[in-house]
Amino acid sequence: MTTLPTPTHTYIDAHWDEHLERTRAFLRQPSISAQNIGLRETAALLRQWLEERGARVAYFGEEARPILLAEWDVGAPKTLLVYGMYDVQPVDGQNWTTPPFAAEIRDHPEGGESIVARGACNSKGPLMAFLHAVEALRATGGLPVNLKWTIEGEEEIGSLALPGFYHAQRARLAADAAFEPFWSQFTLETAPIITLGTKGVMGIEFTCRSGDWGGPREVLHSSLGPWVASPAWRLVQALSTLVNAHQELSVDGLPPLGTIEPEDEALLHKLAETFNAQETLTRLGAARFKRDRPPLEQLEHIEFAPALNINGLKSGYLGEGSHTIIPNEARALCDVRLPPGLKVQETFQAIKDHLARRGFGDIELRMDSGYPAAKTPLAAPVVQALIAAYRAHGYEPTIRPIEASATPYYLFTDVLGLPFAWGGLGAAAGSHGPDEWCSVEGLKALEKSLTTFLAAFAVQDF
Amino acid sequence: MTTLPTPTHTYIDAHWDEHLERTRAFLRQPSISAQNIGLRETAALLRQWLEERGARVAYFGEEARPILLAEWDVGAPKTLLVYGMYDVQPVDGQNWTTPPFAAEIRDHPEGGESIVARGACNSKGPLMAFLHAVEALRATGGLPVNLKWTIEGEEEIGSLALPGFYHAQRARLAADAAFEPFWSQFTLETAPIITLGTKGVMGIEFTCRSGDWGGPREVLHSSLGPWVASPAWRLVQALSTLVNAHQELSVDGLPPLGTIEPEDEALLHKLAETFNAQETLTRLGAARFKRDRPPLEQLEHIEFAPALNINGLKSGYLGEGSHTIIPNEARALCDVRLPPGLKVQETFQAIKDHLARRGFGDIELRMDSGYPAAKTPLAAPVVQALIAAYRAHGYEPTIRPIEASATPYYLFTDVLGLPFAWGGLGAAAGSHGPDEWCSVEGLKALEKSLTTFLAAFAVQDF
Repeated sequence: MTTLPTPTHTYIDAHWDEHLERTRAFLRQPSISAQNIGLRETAALLRQWLEERGARVAYFGEEARPILLAEWDVGAPKTLLVYGMYDVQPVDGQNWTTPPFAAEIRDHPEGGESIVARGACNSKGPLMAFLHAVEALRATGGLPVNLKWTIEGEEEIGSLALPGFYHAQRARLAADAAFEPFWSQFTLETAPIITLGTKGVMGIEFTCRSGDWGGPREVLHSSLGPWVASPAWRLVQALSTLVNAHQELSVDGLPPLGTIEPEDEALLHKLAETFNAQETLTRLGAARFKRDRPPLEQLEHIEFAPALNINGLKSGYLGEGSHTIIPNEARALCDVRLPPGLKVQETFQAIKDHLARRGFGDIELRMDSGYPAAKTPLAAPVVQALIAAYRAHGYEPTIRPIEASATPYYLFTDVLGLPFAWGGLGAAAGSHGPDEWCSVEGLKALEKSLTTFLAAFAVQDF
Repeated sequence: MTTLPTPTHTYIDAHWDEHLERTRAFLRQPSISAQNIGLRETAALLRQWLEERGARVAYFGEEARPILLAEWDVGAPKTLLVYGMYDVQPVDGQNWTTPPFAAEIRDHPEGGESIVARGACNSKGPLMAFLHAVEALRATGGLPVNLKWTIEGEEEIGSLALPGFYHAQRARLAADAAFEPFWSQFTLETAPIITLGTKGVMGIEFTCRSGDWGGPREVLHSSLGPWVASPAWRLVQALSTLVNAHQELSVDGLPPLGTIEPEDEALLHKLAETFNAQETLTRLGAARFKRDRPPLEQLEHIEFAPALNINGLKSGYLGEGSHTIIPNEARALCDVRLPPGLKVQETFQAIKDHLARRGFGDIELRMDSGYPAAKTPLAAPVVQALIAAYRAHGYEPTIRPIEASATPYYLFTDVLGLPFAWGGLGAAAGSHGPDEWCSVEGLKALEKSLTTFLAAFAVQDF
């Protein structure tokens, strides 16, 4: 790798005020998908800036919140598919100390000098950092890779159109790898984190209604309890067969852990060396883990164990005071966390079959949404380029096999057939909450690190 | 027993228009305890009518909704404690076809010519029938028994003051038996039903909170499910230990059936002869019973089995759509139906101990309210007097050991030490719902049968 600073980094320093102001302007333009606020305007603004930087831009999907595809074909040997989003979460009912769409620069208790704005962290800040990285590369020798940047405006409402778009445009989106620019540090002093994959997730609503098995068709007075069974009890009994005494998923045919590759095991061993159980519990706000286990096993579980979570449970009378009834329906809203190796449909069917085998075949299971885990090998050039970029900036990244939270990166692996990575230097936080922020220094570090990463990915010099 | 009609019955026929109009006037006076409407006015009206009929009347408890004690000491050898209530349920949001406080007389699909009014059935109609029965007896030879009539104005909000009043006034309320005038027929053509007792009931709220056992102190993102346990799962697991596969209460130390006396068994045998399982299920709106059993066992269970009912179950996200969280609390609102032999505190403690023995000692149990079953032997003179009265009117009553629904008649047995009965001819229905009604002929039959009963109880001529 070239020694830093590169001419591109020098360009960024020279144009920093302008980049910072354009980023703030973008943050001042509301784009709340859940409330259909400002999406068209934001997309238009973005299109203009992309075209000014040489992209060929096309709109896909709904006119009200289009998916943008910005393409730079520079005839380079490597092509990168990039993911971005221009919509943000609502801000209603949140206690912001500066207005969420003012994008003021001020001292933030965690971030130091920061932009405080909805979208600063998630993900208009990173979007603008990538836009400016492209500009800086073009101004200092040209883009080293071809780019296909897909930018959606409905991530916060579930990326409704994105899977269909990726499916339909598979050929046009052909690339060597996929990438999402995003903060990877807690502060500029901590090691950036690289994660080789994400878990999948599936929403399942379990509904038990009165029926041929028994239960009252209409809500019944509970004095009839000795005679008439209850959907609430039936749901309780059915659910309790799905987990063991430690609340771990325990469904016929589903493994206690997903697929752990040898390289994952090696990474987990390394992470286990510094795993601090007590610190972790304090951060989680819990007195104990589901099970006491040695550090390596705890890490195996958070990254590779499936979990069945009850998000909501409701039946009968939900008010104050008493109301002596037998309900005619009971519901549990659940999610299943899917590690690599557990497929959506198979897992859903295994849970259904497990219940049916125990006499609970009448319980209705409705899948809300679902997608599988996604994983990229450590050796993938896109990952190695990111590692190289971090090292060039003087950081040794922490590498984790799997992110416990779910992200639909299966779209990269399963739909587009691409290895993927996500990252960039810099720190930001407060997604979805009040006083969302990104550090000003972090934003500049992100922008610079993205140019370093693109250069590394282009020449595969690592 | 004297042959009917007695001079008292002839008096009732002669004064019927007046009795009917006074009853309608009483029904036109709203007395909704839950909304604190008209209680004082209703009590004052009642007091006036009682005093006009020779009673010494005293107010007890809260001035806003006093308990009335009306006493007639006629120097008779027998004294009867009578229970009544002057409050009614609210009518809001109900679809009445004639105004609830107009007390119109009209044709009712079930009752024929009926008064339609809130309280017609439950229980201002029976109250007025008893008032007029007293009047008729006084006008035709005098009351044959001393009466102590306690009339409360807060039955519909849980009889808050009554237990304390009965405790405090035990000496003043000394009597030979207790009695509540109430309809016992479905129509004037069906056999009146005598029930020798009522079940008790206890409200228990089970709460599982995060704590030393685990679980997140604050609602947590469900991606942490492989590590952090959930109060929702814990409550599901704890509850599922309290019932068997048939949803029957299955708690260490609690019997599957309460105390069944030999005379109860004989009565159940007789009832089993005409028990129709399919008809019963149709009436309940259920496809099957908790268990298929022969008729005798089904009757044993509805009357003598305890039951633990889930009235309401709630945890986490109760709205529409999804919300991927681990809740920090879960609650189940339950009631326990108590047959004779199961005491309130002991049953509560048995459930608590059962859970603690299975490692769920952290789950909080809060008792909302609770009272035990009450039972009177078939041989009690008050019961025999009621049977004799029905027979004098040409009816052979159906006798059941226990009413499945709960009524705090333990106040008669356990607090006042009195055997008890409740009944009277006539049909009425619609308690708590719209178009509550009592049949006009039924009201007259109730009034007459009450005079017959009082006469029978006085002379114990049966």
